[in-house]
Amino acid sequence: MTQLLGRIRATPLLWLLAFVPVVLLFEMVTPGSHTLLFLLSVLAIVPLAALLSLATESVAEKTGDAAGGLINATLGNLTELVIALTALAAGQYGLVKASIAGAIVTNALFMLGASFLLGGLRHHVQEFNRVGARFQASLLFIATVALLVPSAVGTADRVTDPVAIQKLSLMLAVLLIAGYVLGLYFSLGTHKEAFASAEHEAHEDVLPIGVALITLAVVTVLVALVSHIFVASVEVAGAALGLTPAFVGFIIVSLVGGAAEFASAFSAARKDRLDLSVSIALGSAVQIALFVGPVLVLLSYVIGPAPMGLDFWPGAVVMMLISALSAAMLTNGGHSTWFLGVLVLMVYAIFGLTLYVLPPAP
Amino acid sequence: MTQLLGRIRATPLLWLLAFVPVVLLFEMVTPGSHTLLFLLSVLAIVPLAALLSLATESVAEKTGDAAGGLINATLGNLTELVIALTALAAGQYGLVKASIAGAIVTNALFMLGASFLLGGLRHHVQEFNRVGARFQASLLFIATVALLVPSAVGTADRVTDPVAIQKLSLMLAVLLIAGYVLGLYFSLGTHKEAFASAEHEAHEDVLPIGVALITLAVVTVLVALVSHIFVASVEVAGAALGLTPAFVGFIIVSLVGGAAEFASAFSAARKDRLDLSVSIALGSAVQIALFVGPVLVLLSYVIGPAPMGLDFWPGAVVMMLISALSAAMLTNGGHSTWFLGVLVLMVYAIFGLTLYVLPPAP
Amino acid sequence: MTQLLGRIRATPLLWLLAFVPVVLLFEMVTPGSHTLLFLLSVLAIVPLAALLSLATESVAEKTGDAAGGLINATLGNLTELVIALTALAAGQYGLVKASIAGAIVTNALFMLGASFLLGGLRHHVQEFNRVGARFQASLLFIATVALLVPSAVGTADRVTDPVAIQKLSLMLAVLLIAGYVLGLYFSLGTHKEAFASAEHEAHEDVLPIGVALITLAVVTVLVALVSHIFVASVEVAGAALGLTPAFVGFIIVSLVGGAAEFASAFSAARKDRLDLSVSIALGSAVQIALFVGPVLVLLSYVIGPAPMGLDFWPGAVVMMLISALSAAMLTNGGHSTWFLGVLVLMVYAIFGLTLYVLPPAP
Repeated sequence: MTQLLGRIRATPLLWLLAFVPVVLLFEMVTPGSHTLLFLLSVLAIVPLAALLSLATESVAEKTGDAAGGLINATLGNLTELVIALTALAAGQYGLVKASIAGAIVTNALFMLGASFLLGGLRHHVQEFNRVGARFQASLLFIATVALLVPSAVGTADRVTDPVAIQKLSLMLAVLLIAGYVLGLYFSLGTHKEAFASAEHEAHEDVLPIGVALITLAVVTVLVALVSHIFVASVEVAGAALGLTPAFVGFIIVSLVGGAAEFASAFSAARKDRLDLSVSIALGSAVQIALFVGPVLVLLSYVIGPAPMGLDFWPGAVVMMLISALSAAMLTNGGHSTWFLGVLVLMVYAIFGLTLYVLPPAP
Repeated sequence: MTQLLGRIRATPLLWLLAFVPVVLLFEMVTPGSHTLLFLLSVLAIVPLAALLSLATESVAEKTGDAAGGLINATLGNLTELVIALTALAAGQYGLVKASIAGAIVTNALFMLGASFLLGGLRHHVQEFNRVGARFQASLLFIATVALLVPSAVGTADRVTDPVAIQKLSLMLAVLLIAGYVLGLYFSLGTHKEAFASAEHEAHEDVLPIGVALITLAVVTVLVALVSHIFVASVEVAGAALGLTPAFVGFIIVSLVGGAAEFASAFSAARKDRLDLSVSIALGSAVQIALFVGPVLVLLSYVIGPAPMGLDFWPGAVVMMLISALSAAMLTNGGHSTWFLGVLVLMVYAIFGLTLYVLPPAP
Repeated sequence: MTQLLGRIRATPLLWLLAFVPVVLLFEMVTPGSHTLLFLLSVLAIVPLAALLSLATESVAEKTGDAAGGLINATLGNLTELVIALTALAAGQYGLVKASIAGAIVTNALFMLGASFLLGGLRHHVQEFNRVGARFQASLLFIATVALLVPSAVGTADRVTDPVAIQKLSLMLAVLLIAGYVLGLYFSLGTHKEAFASAEHEAHEDVLPIGVALITLAVVTVLVALVSHIFVASVEVAGAALGLTPAFVGFIIVSLVGGAAEFASAFSAARKDRLDLSVSIALGSAVQIALFVGPVLVLLSYVIGPAPMGLDFWPGAVVMMLISALSAAMLTNGGHSTWFLGVLVLMVYAIFGLTLYVLPPAP
């Protein structure tokens, strides 16, 4: 416990935890101040995500290689999952889909590009392991294809039968989760030697297992509570701030939910350990596409007001495909400079501007 | 002749030849049992394709390098060509186009993916020649682009002038065949040293030239007869089995027509000769795109009820492009594991499920 | 001055300069003979472009590394810029957009493919620097994405709000120019050692600085005058020759405007200096996408009858994306043969045929 408090004291990002009680208090006092609640909930989720990430890593570290990897791989995007589940339960499927697509694009472009840029500002040319990056990028490309084929084929052929699309979404969700499980068996089982190196040195300063488990449980509940406020306020607040729902789901939710991972990736890049940055960025994008998205489809049968499909709006499909292609192409060379980071961030900025100015028709 | 019979006895796949007389008999006795005739004709085409492939290879082996390569390259997809010709003569252009697009996708994804998987289950990591694979994948990408640009540009710009599309298709068919001929001159003429190695050791156990030529002629006639039954029954049988015409053309016809090549590619993969598997898979896809498709367009002026165009339905365009990109990306690294095979097969499964559930509008 | 005249005497292409007074004369005498004026203006622009290119290089050579690179990078596509500006002032936005898209595609496919082919006819296999080519191709891919995302997202989501598209175009133009400036700082500043080699040996035979500056000024004025005639006659002449405006803008204008660069790239390829050819081809495509296009958008507020957007017709988007992907894929291997050139030229021919036969709806 002392360790946890010490960690919080040492990490300025975690001081934002003060906003957690503040937002819960304001929710009770002025439930109608949507814009205020929205801003406070954003400020509260960021440190919670960082704490969740720390707790997950600590549990993973203590349980040995295979189980630890499994925990990390399953809970790595827990914040995004909890936010999306809250939106799902509230029936805000547009927000859920925008946040899935946005998380893929944000991880593959923003996290990767900013890592290249921040690393490149300190180091002239940075090398990274081409083989690992290529594996992750291939996986991301295929995962993205899996997610976008139904939308692309459905749109291109003007198919509008919602029952058929729902049936296909369910089949694909099962197929993708099966692929994810096989991928875990591959990376933690048959070929774990190829993935071992980068993971290990990452987390030096972990919590004791008891503290970590309690932290994991408590913080998950807090994330759920704050997410509830966030999801309830986001649409009204977005409108008040002049933001479209697509922009909020795609950009804001992704940046907020991924804050903790960004911190790890950027810090690794500045220490000239780009392997780790690339692995966090692409691995996280893969996990959203192959696991979080499909799980949300399955859970929509249980907790949502109606089944949710895997069909995205066409612009989201275009952006996911371009992100996967960019990531594959740019990690292919195995070395990066600051300008490569600028280019990747430019693509992300273009997507953001497009969503800001040209919202998709509802 | 004894050699041929010995070969048939030694190869369980060829025992299916017994279905050839059976299907011809049933066609005379019960011409109305479409589903039965469909299933029997599938069972009969598979061994005929294998025999055709053996005969082609035997002829090619005997006639020396350049001519042999030419024969192999021209007759390599003879089964697919005969099936498509039969459908063309019957005016079933939807089936012809679905089988062209399906053959490209099936060769580039199913044959490649299953080779990676089957090879990877026996060998931990398999290496293959990056340079050769990259050449084939580039060729496939460009060939696919050639096939899809008219559809993509036509669709995107909402062009619906059938006369203009037909005129463009004819010009493109001539251009593609010219490209194919130049490609043969390249791979059998000016740069044959780069292609020599992989081809040669492949076929050890060939037929004498006389037997091979007779087999080639007889089996081609048999394939034509059985294809006739297949094409006549496929639509009614497909409907009875709950399959859409697009699914039957894209998946069933491609799997049936390519059975013999699959056998060679998979056997090579298990012997850790992935170069050969990759070369068969991508080479076959290239041949369909650059030669079989355009030849069918030209022949539609002679044997079809009306000229056939090179315009595909938009979903087929999306799937061909994704297949070519996947093949290029995944063969880029030069080594494979079982999980890479799983990923490629997943994309193929996604295409299959999509076609099964969301048929394109007619 | 003697040097300039000597240079003109020694270069057959520059003899076409005789057409400059001819076209200016005919414009005064028979302003209504559009087809004649069109053909004469094409013949006059080609040598002017070559002269402009020579003058720019000579100035760049004299002013030292960084400033010279800056001049070359800014004025490298001056001909295209002047033609497009003339069309912009005349309010022919369709022609401007077709020429931007066409210049990207023509540089990335025609110039690259013809360099591969011409070099490959003389040399069996040609090597080139993979790292440099990959950098340029990545840049081209990202630049193209930047240009096409608004069109793709706008089209896919059926957004038709012209005010929003214009607002987005303006923001993107500023973003792209910022990216271009950062790119110059990268290639002439922080990482210039990676770009130094290829540039330098290129121009041996330059003009004295005074002559070069005067040539630059005079020829720019002449290009502007002839472009005026070209733009005024192109549409009527195109119709008379059976060419659609899209074909004229995309193919004719690009081939005419790029003639001088083609000459340099092809000559380098035949001397087995493919690095230089690839760098000219892809660098020029990048410059159009990141600098010329956005500058035209900004200038449309000043000299055009109305603001011009960055939205292209969907077919142009497809062609730009395929060109960038092809360039990235084909330069990835680092070596080329004549057949690679044939393949790239085939894609260009397919685009040309498609535009010739299937013009986009206006």
